[in-house]
Amino acid sequence: MSKPRAVVLLSGGLDSATCLAIARERGFDPIAISFNYGQRHKSELLAAKKLAGLAGAAHEVIAVDLAAIGGSALTADIAVPKGGAHLGAAPAIPVTYVPVRNLIFLSLAYALAEARGAQALFIGVNAVDYSGYPDCRPDFIEAFAKTAALASKIGREGRSPEIIAPLVTFSKADIAREALRLKVPVQFTWSCYDPQLHEGFYRPCENCDACILRRNGFADAGYQLSKEEIFGSPLALA
Amino acid sequence: MSKPRAVVLLSGGLDSATCLAIARERGFDPIAISFNYGQRHKSELLAAKKLAGLAGAAHEVIAVDLAAIGGSALTADIAVPKGGAHLGAAPAIPVTYVPVRNLIFLSLAYALAEARGAQALFIGVNAVDYSGYPDCRPDFIEAFAKTAALASKIGREGRSPEIIAPLVTFSKADIAREALRLKVPVQFTWSCYDPQLHEGFYRPCENCDACILRRNGFADAGYQLSKEEIFGSPLALA
Repeated sequence: MSKPRAVVLLSGGLDSATCLAIARERGFDPIAISFNYGQRHKSELLAAKKLAGLAGAAHEVIAVDLAAIGGSALTADIAVPKGGAHLGAAPAIPVTYVPVRNLIFLSLAYALAEARGAQALFIGVNAVDYSGYPDCRPDFIEAFAKTAALASKIGREGRSPEIIAPLVTFSKADIAREALRLKVPVQFTWSCYDPQLHEGFYRPCENCDACILRRNGFADAGYQLSKEEIFGSPLALA
Repeated sequence: MSKPRAVVLLSGGLDSATCLAIARERGFDPIAISFNYGQRHKSELLAAKKLAGLAGAAHEVIAVDLAAIGGSALTADIAVPKGGAHLGAAPAIPVTYVPVRNLIFLSLAYALAEARGAQALFIGVNAVDYSGYPDCRPDFIEAFAKTAALASKIGREGRSPEIIAPLVTFSKADIAREALRLKVPVQFTWSCYDPQLHEGFYRPCENCDACILRRNGFADAGYQLSKEEIFGSPLALA
């Protein structure tokens, strides 16, 4: 008997790569979905492609032009914050927030789940270490599931896919442990918000919020890893 | 004092053009948003551009590749139903349903509202004459408003735009009356799902569900109109 399908949002980062491995472990045949949304750097898409291939998962890349909407350092020429001084302070919404990005991405992933007959939809959000993003919280995920069921043919027929956010209550150290337990090739994941482009390679900056959180996660979990495992390996420009 | 902004979803059809006029009447400065989503025919985008221009509204066209997701006669090579024999029967979801299209479009429109500081978001869905679409019903619109508020910076700050669906309980005849009351240039609206391309012009087929509902709406409202007003004028290919 063939395995049930699951759509997995795969950004190319540590969290979504771990989510992909969890979907596999739970017995699903995963279809990874990534978005070409006008992000300034395509490094995360290169990483997503590599990770889907290594996991033997189908990979679909959907274009959606969020850069035309704007309002974020990830799509417009706004400086990405460095040094992590504000991390751990009272949660504020960072300039890397893209307006309702996860609402848009989940909606597109739900459409793919409907079109491909998937029974589950995995998203690697977590609300703990980076709670400045409003669309990474459990209340949003629950509200989304109800709304999407009302918006869809499958939902009206009582066959809505389950929305699973397995990392939502995990700390970054918990995610690091889960990634290594599941043998996620962490050296090929990409988290950096501000890749340095040099001699045909993207290299992680090691100093943006995403790099710092990731480094701290591995350290808090007690791992001694290589620089490539901690921050991700340089990626050749496609 | 400048008027408050409103984002208005403008497909180029009769309903959304009427919605744009309602937003104006209610005192908003409208920003029309349309989607280049991989629809087989661009006639509705040409109509939307013309209508926004006539209304003096800003017009933003956002690309989102729903054709890559598939599952609909509007994006794939599936025959559009003709003759209207099934209309008025027990509501079934038609093959022109695009998986969670209004959820995706509303999410993108909400992002635009956030990025442009709009205080309202108008959508011309109606649940009466064409209730086969699950994402045109009031329960979906209400659930969406709650979910988007949870997903967004403006929502978490208590400044979520109001989601206004002024036509949701209207019959097609009510919409026809409202359009003519507000002097919507109905001859430049485009509803047809199956445009006939001939000698450099798109012409409405006059026989798909959208054409038939529109013709019946004007007739039920008691109007004697020209063929161009009833179905929309031929559109020159861009």
